[in-house]
Order: sequence, then structure tokens, then C-alpha cells
Amino acid sequence: MIIDCHGHFTTVPASFRDWRARQVEFANDPAGAPPLADARIADDDIREAIGNGQLRLQKERGSDLTLFSPIAGLMSHHLGNERTSLEWAEVSNNLVRRVCDLFPDNFAPVCQLPQSPSAPPKNAVPELRRCVEDLGFVGCNLNPDPSGGYWTGKPMTDREWYPVYEALCELDVPAMIHVASSCNPCFHGTGAHYINADTAVFMQLLQGDLFKDFPTLRLVIPHGGGAVPYHWGRYRGMSLEVANRPLEGLLDNIFFDTCVYHHPGVELLTKVVPTSNVMFGSEMIGAVRGRDPATGEYFDDTKRYIDACEALDDADRHAIFEGNVRRVYPRLDRQLKARGL
Amino acid sequence: MIIDCHGHFTTVPASFRDWRARQVEFANDPAGAPPLADARIADDDIREAIGNGQLRLQKERGSDLTLFSPIAGLMSHHLGNERTSLEWAEVSNNLVRRVCDLFPDNFAPVCQLPQSPSAPPKNAVPELRRCVEDLGFVGCNLNPDPSGGYWTGKPMTDREWYPVYEALCELDVPAMIHVASSCNPCFHGTGAHYINADTAVFMQLLQGDLFKDFPTLRLVIPHGGGAVPYHWGRYRGMSLEVANRPLEGLLDNIFFDTCVYHHPGVELLTKVVPTSNVMFGSEMIGAVRGRDPATGEYFDDTKRYIDACEALDDADRHAIFEGNVRRVYPRLDRQLKARGL
Repeated sequence: MIIDCHGHFTTVPASFRDWRARQVEFANDPAGAPPLADARIADDDIREAIGNGQLRLQKERGSDLTLFSPIAGLMSHHLGNERTSLEWAEVSNNLVRRVCDLFPDNFAPVCQLPQSPSAPPKNAVPELRRCVEDLGFVGCNLNPDPSGGYWTGKPMTDREWYPVYEALCELDVPAMIHVASSCNPCFHGTGAHYINADTAVFMQLLQGDLFKDFPTLRLVIPHGGGAVPYHWGRYRGMSLEVANRPLEGLLDNIFFDTCVYHHPGVELLTKVVPTSNVMFGSEMIGAVRGRDPATGEYFDDTKRYIDACEALDDADRHAIFEGNVRRVYPRLDRQLKARGL
Repeated sequence: MIIDCHGHFTTVPASFRDWRARQVEFANDPAGAPPLADARIADDDIREAIGNGQLRLQKERGSDLTLFSPIAGLMSHHLGNERTSLEWAEVSNNLVRRVCDLFPDNFAPVCQLPQSPSAPPKNAVPELRRCVEDLGFVGCNLNPDPSGGYWTGKPMTDREWYPVYEALCELDVPAMIHVASSCNPCFHGTGAHYINADTAVFMQLLQGDLFKDFPTLRLVIPHGGGAVPYHWGRYRGMSLEVANRPLEGLLDNIFFDTCVYHHPGVELLTKVVPTSNVMFGSEMIGAVRGRDPATGEYFDDTKRYIDACEALDDADRHAIFEGNVRRVYPRLDRQLKARGL
């Protein structure tokens, strides 16, 4: 079984994006805000958006199941206010739940959280609980910078984040560390802010001692870990010097996906990071949607790059494509087992 | 000849750091500020700091010459004000000039600029001119984020930077894009801010069209290009989609050093980036000063990693160790030729 741990509903119908734009426009004037009912997408429109998008590419590329969450860029926690963030998270998560109900063999749900630069992280816990306990979600995306590229909040090792980690541990679900869009003109969203957030948070975790307080917490650093595996020697050295522990001491709790869009990058990732910490991911129909003119293949068809890593044996491939994600997302594993998988 | 394109005077005597601390403390009270004369380091103290530091490691590791600039972290353009930034740049650059006068065979000078978050970049041009025209400097470090980690300024493609580029082109010197320390608790300096700045600026250049206006401008992205080579496929794809040009269209103007502290990273760098765009650099006695317990070797001995890249032939090695840096820094080339090298 081949599980893609990183997918977003990037192909939502335009009406859904329009609803969000109006919601933000009237964030401080609820009387003019669009009614919730207008955010509703018909089943047929969901089927079309998914069927012509992620589902088609799943089949073409040979994967079976995608961990599916709302569009990351559109989480935009820096827009609106805490109330609109909550409403938008509920609407977006409910839509993802419906995608998974329509295509239960192909998608498993991961939620966005109602974060806001003006609200403490703990305020996101009730929506996390609703999604996991009531709706069967198996994980969440946690934004380390709700300011959208100005990084005015606190590092993720700060105690203000602890209520979120307590809930994650109690619910036994991991969080993927994932920013939303950037409103800072210095940072392109998918070309800089995404990658930089991955690197910055990894370094926060390296500096701190979070996993002493939360030994079972599991965090996924997407986009191949940002710059981290490329600079693995730098981080190995800094971990010894800054934190007086080998970098490997973090690897019970930190995992990387394979959203690296060329073979040499995936080869480096699987060479320097232990196989037990790498999970297949593509974030397909995301940052780079085109084909490489040199090969004719899609840049974001990352399965192809893993397939071409000759140093991986069958056990490695099973771990990367299925085993690790079932271990890191135990609620997914239980759902699959209940289906005899 | 083996030229290290990336070195800082990180081993300055403590009295020099102390002078800077007092200068910042009294930034708005010049009457209490430390006298300039107190920043003076004796020749013997310079000889000791260099002789036991960068010069010793140059000899041990087998390189010949280092492009040498003031400590990057200590540039701290976010501290003090425009006046103290100018004074500090002058003092620091004069000290680097003296290092190069004491060890003319081993070091060539690169300057810091008197940037400040409250001042337009053009205000840095007179000090750039003084260093290059009067003092024989061959390049400069240009800070893309004088705010020290909050990125409140404009992207480097903005026209406010143009006076700096005009001067760089006229003087025919390159700039290394190099941030100073971070005052943002979300970003560790050398573990996140450095690497993220490299990635962010590369993406700014990809999005923009700066080199149409400055076809001879040469910018060096240090630390192996941040995350860029690891995500080369992402940037190849984005260049086509965002800018409608192949990524290779940037490579007349952008160069990467080899400050990547393990062999697999340097191997990836030299595999995906054309050899003509890679320059040997180590930033020794910098972010990672220790030895790899697995090998007993220094993490920042990057020459060793290049030596171990089997795919490089003699012409590649000559380009990486000498040829490219003499081409990118023509004033260095002329100085070396004048010495018969």
C-alpha cells in the first residue's frame, strides 16, 4: 500500500475561495458577512474537483491513499480575526471530511486549526478535538507563524504551545508543521516561506528540550525538512554544540516527508536521514504543477524519485511508503486495519 | 591555488566586541560613547588571533588565500542607529584591512556595509567606495534584512536597492548576500536566519527581473545557497511557472559557495548546480566549530568534502577552488596577477 502523507484540497471550486474572500472582507462587520450556507459545495462539484485532480494523479502515479487537508495557503491565519479563523477552519475541515466520505478508499482527513496571531495557541484545541474525536481525523496541520511571514509570535518550544501538544499526545495524533500563505513581500509563499518555516522550526526544536516534556509528541516537518537534510552536517554539529546531544536524539519525534522535487534531493534525504524518519509525500497539485521539460515528467511526482533510489531495499521502501506513516498516524492505522488493510 | 571565498574575522579579541557593546549602549548618548581609539587592536593581538585561528587552519587544511570580512553576526545592523552602523563598519573594515596588510599572502579584504533599518540602502555606497577605491577591497557583504530577522524591509529587487547595484557594477565587485545576527527568537542566527535568508533572496531574484537592469551584477549566495540546491527541482519548476524563464537564466549572475558541512550536501551541490557557479568556501571558525565524532574531522573543513566528490574532474576542481572566484572577483584577480600569481 502506498500512502501519500501530504496532500491539500488545492482544487476547491472557485466559489469556495470567493466565500473566504468575502468572509475576510466582512471580518469586522458580521452583518455583511456571507452566510455559512453559501460555502456549501455540491457533492458533484467535489467529485469533479477531486476526480479530475488528486484522484486522477493518484491513479496515474500509482499511489493508493492520501492524507488530505485543507489548502495550506488559504488557511491564512493572519487574515480576519479569531472568529473568522474558527469559522473558516470548521468550514474547511467539514469539506475535507466530505471528500473522505465520498472517496473513503483514497483519502484520510487531516485538519487545519483555527489559529490567529491575536489568540493563544490553546484556543485551537477545541476544533482539534472536534475533528479527531467526532469526525475521525487522523492528524492536523499546525502553523508555527500565524502572522504570515513576520514571525512576531513565540518559538514552538514556548510554553504557550504546550496545551496543543498536550492534546496531540492525549489524542495520539501527530502535527505537520505547516505555514499558510505569506503576506511579507520578502517571502514568496511556496518558494521561501514554506521552506524557511520548516528549517526555522527544526532549529527551534534542536535548541529546545520539548521532547523531554512530551516524549510521545510526533511532528512532521514537510517539504523534505526545508533545508535541514542538505545541511545535515551543520545540524549534527550544532546539536552537539548548542544542545549537547546528538542530533539523532530528536528522531523519535521528528519526521520528514519527501516533497523534494528532483531525484538528487530525494536521494540525499534518504541517504542522510534514517529510513524510519522519512515518509512518502508529494503535496501534488501544489507549489509546482508543471512538467520538467527535460524529462516530460511532473516535478511533483515524488514517487518516481524514491523508486529511482537504488540504495533503498524493500524494507526501506515499505517503511517510506506505508510503515512509517501508519506508525506516526496510529489512528490511520486503526482505520485501515478495521477495513482489513 | 586554493581560494576560500568565505571567511570572517570571528576570532577578534574580546576588547573589540566589548567596544561594540559599549558603542551600541551609548548609541543615543554620544557623549558617553567609547572613544574610537579604544577600538584599536595592537598588531601583536591581530597576529595572535589570526595565527592561532584562520591562518593555522588554512595551513592545516591546505588552502592558500581567504576572502576575509568582518564577523557577520556582529554586523548587527538592527542595533544602534545609522551613525553607529557607519562608525562600526569603518572600524571593522579598517581592522580587516590591517589583517590583510599583516598577512598579504593569506587574506584579501571584503567589507561590511553601514546599513540600518531606518536608512535607505544607498547610504551604504560611500563606505563601499572608500573600501574598494581607497583601500583595495575586492567585494562586500550585503545584508538583505537589516531588521535582524523581522524582514520589515523591501525585497532586494526593489528599486531602493538599485544605487547599491549601480555602484557594485561600476566598481566591478560582487556582493555576498549575508545577514547579520537575529534578534527574532523564532530564528536562531546561524541555524535558521542565515540559511533562510539565502533561500528567501534567491527566490526574490527568481521572481524578479533584476539582472535585466544589471546584466553584469554578481551576487554570491552563501551557505551552499541555503535550501536552494536541495530543492533545485522546485526552483526549476517555479522559475518556469512564476517567471517564464529557465532557472539557468539566473546563472550568469548568481553564485553559491560550498559552506555545507557534510559530504552528501556538497556532492548534491556540485551535481545539480553547474560547476561554473560553485566557489569553494568554508566560513571556518564560524557556525560549527567542532569535530564530527564519527570521523574526528572538523565539520567546517569543506575542502575535504569537495576532494571526495568523485564526479569532479581536474577542470571542475580548478574552477571551484580558484577559477570561478577570480572571475567573480576581478579585483582579486588583478591583485593576484600583479603578484605574479
